[in-house]
Amino acid sequence: MLEKINGPEDIRALSRQEQEQLAQEIRDFLIEKISVTGGHLASNLGVVELTMAIYLTFDLPKDKVIWDVGHQAYTHKILSGRKNFDELRQLGGISGFPKTRESACDAFNTGHSSTSISAGLGMAQARDLKGEDYHVVSIIGDGALTGGMAYEALNNAAMLDSNFIIVLNDNNMSISENVGGMSRYLGGLRTSEGYNDLKKSVTSVLEKIPVAGPRMIDKISRTKQGIKQLLIPGMLFENMGITYLGPVDGHDLNQLCRVLKEAKKVDHAVLVHVRTQKGKGYRPAEKNPERFHGVDPFDVETGKPRQEKIYPSYTDVFSRELCRLAKKDERIVAITAAMPDGTGLKRFRKEFPQRFFDVGIAEQHAVTSAAGMAAAGLKPVVAVYSSFLQRGYDQILHDVCIQNLPVVFAVDRAGLVGSDGETHQGIFDLSYLTSIPNMSVLAPKNLWELQKELDFALQYDGPIAVRYPRGMAYRGLKEFDSPIVYGKGEVLYEGKDIALLAVGSMVSTAEHIRDKLKEEGWDVTLANGRFIKPVDWELVDRLASSHSRLVVLEENVLQGGYGLQVTAHVHQRHPGVRVMNVALPDMYVEHGNVSLLREALGIDSDSIIRRMREEGYL
Amino acid sequence: MLEKINGPEDIRALSRQEQEQLAQEIRDFLIEKISVTGGHLASNLGVVELTMAIYLTFDLPKDKVIWDVGHQAYTHKILSGRKNFDELRQLGGISGFPKTRESACDAFNTGHSSTSISAGLGMAQARDLKGEDYHVVSIIGDGALTGGMAYEALNNAAMLDSNFIIVLNDNNMSISENVGGMSRYLGGLRTSEGYNDLKKSVTSVLEKIPVAGPRMIDKISRTKQGIKQLLIPGMLFENMGITYLGPVDGHDLNQLCRVLKEAKKVDHAVLVHVRTQKGKGYRPAEKNPERFHGVDPFDVETGKPRQEKIYPSYTDVFSRELCRLAKKDERIVAITAAMPDGTGLKRFRKEFPQRFFDVGIAEQHAVTSAAGMAAAGLKPVVAVYSSFLQRGYDQILHDVCIQNLPVVFAVDRAGLVGSDGETHQGIFDLSYLTSIPNMSVLAPKNLWELQKELDFALQYDGPIAVRYPRGMAYRGLKEFDSPIVYGKGEVLYEGKDIALLAVGSMVSTAEHIRDKLKEEGWDVTLANGRFIKPVDWELVDRLASSHSRLVVLEENVLQGGYGLQVTAHVHQRHPGVRVMNVALPDMYVEHGNVSLLREALGIDSDSIIRRMREEGYL
Repeated sequence: MLEKINGPEDIRALSRQEQEQLAQEIRDFLIEKISVTGGHLASNLGVVELTMAIYLTFDLPKDKVIWDVGHQAYTHKILSGRKNFDELRQLGGISGFPKTRESACDAFNTGHSSTSISAGLGMAQARDLKGEDYHVVSIIGDGALTGGMAYEALNNAAMLDSNFIIVLNDNNMSISENVGGMSRYLGGLRTSEGYNDLKKSVTSVLEKIPVAGPRMIDKISRTKQGIKQLLIPGMLFENMGITYLGPVDGHDLNQLCRVLKEAKKVDHAVLVHVRTQKGKGYRPAEKNPERFHGVDPFDVETGKPRQEKIYPSYTDVFSRELCRLAKKDERIVAITAAMPDGTGLKRFRKEFPQRFFDVGIAEQHAVTSAAGMAAAGLKPVVAVYSSFLQRGYDQILHDVCIQNLPVVFAVDRAGLVGSDGETHQGIFDLSYLTSIPNMSVLAPKNLWELQKELDFALQYDGPIAVRYPRGMAYRGLKEFDSPIVYGKGEVLYEGKDIALLAVGSMVSTAEHIRDKLKEEGWDVTLANGRFIKPVDWELVDRLASSHSRLVVLEENVLQGGYGLQVTAHVHQRHPGVRVMNVALPDMYVEHGNVSLLREALGIDSDSIIRRMREEGYL
Repeated sequence: MLEKINGPEDIRALSRQEQEQLAQEIRDFLIEKISVTGGHLASNLGVVELTMAIYLTFDLPKDKVIWDVGHQAYTHKILSGRKNFDELRQLGGISGFPKTRESACDAFNTGHSSTSISAGLGMAQARDLKGEDYHVVSIIGDGALTGGMAYEALNNAAMLDSNFIIVLNDNNMSISENVGGMSRYLGGLRTSEGYNDLKKSVTSVLEKIPVAGPRMIDKISRTKQGIKQLLIPGMLFENMGITYLGPVDGHDLNQLCRVLKEAKKVDHAVLVHVRTQKGKGYRPAEKNPERFHGVDPFDVETGKPRQEKIYPSYTDVFSRELCRLAKKDERIVAITAAMPDGTGLKRFRKEFPQRFFDVGIAEQHAVTSAAGMAAAGLKPVVAVYSSFLQRGYDQILHDVCIQNLPVVFAVDRAGLVGSDGETHQGIFDLSYLTSIPNMSVLAPKNLWELQKELDFALQYDGPIAVRYPRGMAYRGLKEFDSPIVYGKGEVLYEGKDIALLAVGSMVSTAEHIRDKLKEEGWDVTLANGRFIKPVDWELVDRLASSHSRLVVLEENVLQGGYGLQVTAHVHQRHPGVRVMNVALPDMYVEHGNVSLLREALGIDSDSIIRRMREEGYL
């Protein structure tokens, strides 16, 4: 069947039986392909029928379908004709997320959570103003519904007086287990009997209630919770003014098509509650959806990774070190926004369940509740990916830093992350963090320095961020283990021809540059800036006093980062000394292997040496 | 009575009658003082009794009270002993917002909306972990409840198993009218009979319903909305797992104390719904609470401003020009986050009601729904204060700029804003906007240039921000009206001794510097950078080729702003040319008169000339 699918209309030519066969083929295809390339699996297996139902009910690309987060859009890519999954998430290949540049069927780019209702509502409003006629469908997971901006959008969607369809893809999970009042509420709905049976269930409940009067009141108040749920499922949404349809079985194509058709008729915002199972159809993913959320290549038979991880990642190092420190200081608490696994806090949750807080996909609340905890005497550590912390920018600036509160930000996935692409590259944090007063920012050169910096950060009495990259922790330069002193870097090798000043991941790149230049006979100084904020001006002065050429290296966009500060300082204090900035260019970086991206962007050691030559630094 | 109040416990020594007299005295005091200094009036008049009830029920500073936004904390300041309102919001005087540095009774700094539940929940969680015993109370307006992070916090508060009190101060307004489903929902609650009468109203409704059966079902489904509201007020909150008490009359001290006492007994999160009237007790403010939200000095008798505004502000100019442009292009739509008045969009709302969107206090949704509108062919203008746009940072980066969508950001209150202080200074936008790829940023030197830049921005096919300061639009330099060309600045005066390169508000400062230096015989070049991103490198090259000294001026923090880019460029391309950066230091700037702040921070013309002399630029 899969061969017959080359565009959005092809699925309609199939009989219902063929469609069911197609669902199976899509599942087999996804498991086979992702087992080789890696990618998001469990979430995609969960929405095969839902995606098919959308293609059967709506007219793509005329109708606009927006996938929240977007990592569950693989079936959508297949049905719109993009089947080259051998190059999924690889440089030049198809993205793991919707991209408007890739297909007209991708109505809006996504990547971060909880944006789809806002984008969809904006489109619906534009449609109405322009007098156009199409449907807008935003598909959002129950996990993404914990993000505040989804609620801001629902609040506004309630005022729309034309059709706008929100599909709640409820698999009872974020990336990890769901948390919070909304999740508990949806749990109640999930077990209710469904929209077709609404009237029946209301009847049966009320028939059991005796004649209205005092005894009834009593009974109602005792079983309030239960009655509420049964009387009007989705009341929370209806209370806001959004029609609720559901729940429906997300793996029953007929039922899905029926309810979506019904949703098209509503003349305002309507939420369709669809129950799906994450990992559906692949036993290992059904059993362990969290592990199969985003996976490296795995063996299809066993579900086990094809390559055993030998060396620890920075995340692993953070995970262990934080637990070690937390044993000694019970004021240490840890906060994650729905990513206990990805951020390495799973271990902390196990060892210190009372001191662990998973706030759901809610970075704003993560940051400000940490500020509240710090104000009340705790030592909160917010562990979060660099690109997701962007959501908490105002909270860092306004709630943490104005009051100079001791919140530690463990900023993971800082720098290039590779296959997730534009939306996930952690290449802005040095810019958005260093322009905030009272904030301090460090980055480790290797495994051991991360341990020390985390230790230091937890001793420090003010806002402080430690940023470290995705992937294996660097194990070189172990012998350089100078103690962490506030605002101080370290010189690793003293030379006299030229000085390299690097921060974080770029220290190892600088080391490679030094090694290569040494072979050519150059005597190169190598310094680790360590603190991005405050910059170690003494170190810069020392390097600029003893060298006429400085190269400053960082894995962040140039604007607002580390290097321009250093350049301006040298310019003003050390006339005649030249500074070259190595940083990322002013552009979004697409998906692809990190090594290839580094080369393409000119921040690998060979490219840098070439540039040094071209610009007369060698 | 007011004289007897010098600390948090003093109010308790008064009889209930004396307390009522105190309420009157506080109102008189607030009206008298604010009529002289200016400040937030309507919101403060609305919470006099509520604040008193909190002081009567809780033990400050042991119990922690957090005022959301914080502009309504004047009575709180008075009751905690801070009565020197003659210096309110002035340099060195008391702040218009809670400040932990000012009093132990200020548990947490606020300023931006919707943070109080997160901060309060964090404190409650810290209290429980540390085994301490105190109450935490977060007081949030119904307007602030439209902000997504409030919902993130409610979602998490639902999981707490200890006391945490959320007071919903419901005055049926944000700064402007409220919007959205939540507001409509609260409207229903507001008119319900109150928590004391809950059982009574349930009884009366149900007694009118005939025996359970088909006819009842029918009736229920027809009057569903009404019955839901009457049966269980606050169900939306209860659905999430938060106990709801209310609504209560926020001007009835007895009732307030009773319900707050009850709230203290709840062993989880509880929301107390308090109905207040904005502007209560001062007729002009009751009639026009929006105008009396934040006021300049006014005449108490008439309510009219003491000084008539003679010259238009930048906001006025934006307001008029946008309407003029919108008449010619019906794709132009305008979006505000609850500030149609402050941002100047009131006129647009009146002229183009269908094309105007007030999304409530929801900057994230404002930005991403604008992205959706732009993707669907409109030309959205998001008008927002610089410091509030910080909330939309990730949305700008992730939803607007990756897709390079034509959204115009009209960034008002950019630069120093004066009396609102730290939380409201718009001194970071150049940093957080210029590090985002695909973004363009302009700033006008005067009134006429703002018109032109807005016109340009609406022609431009990509994300673009025009940033302009609070207050009167500059009317000098009118003769310099070169057309706006993408990425190009302009030279206003050609000199040969030294070059001043300024952006936005600093162009007029640079003009003053030039005038003063001219008197001393210096021949000074004055250039308007106009584009902060992209920088006009040709202009920089030209200036650096013909001058040996450049001074670059901006009203933004140095890090991540305009000047460091220019310095680095000159350093790399023009050896021997010196660049001095004039920008704001790496610190939060407290409240005070803008002229005084400029002097204190060294960005007024005299300070800059002094520094130029000291550093050998003259």
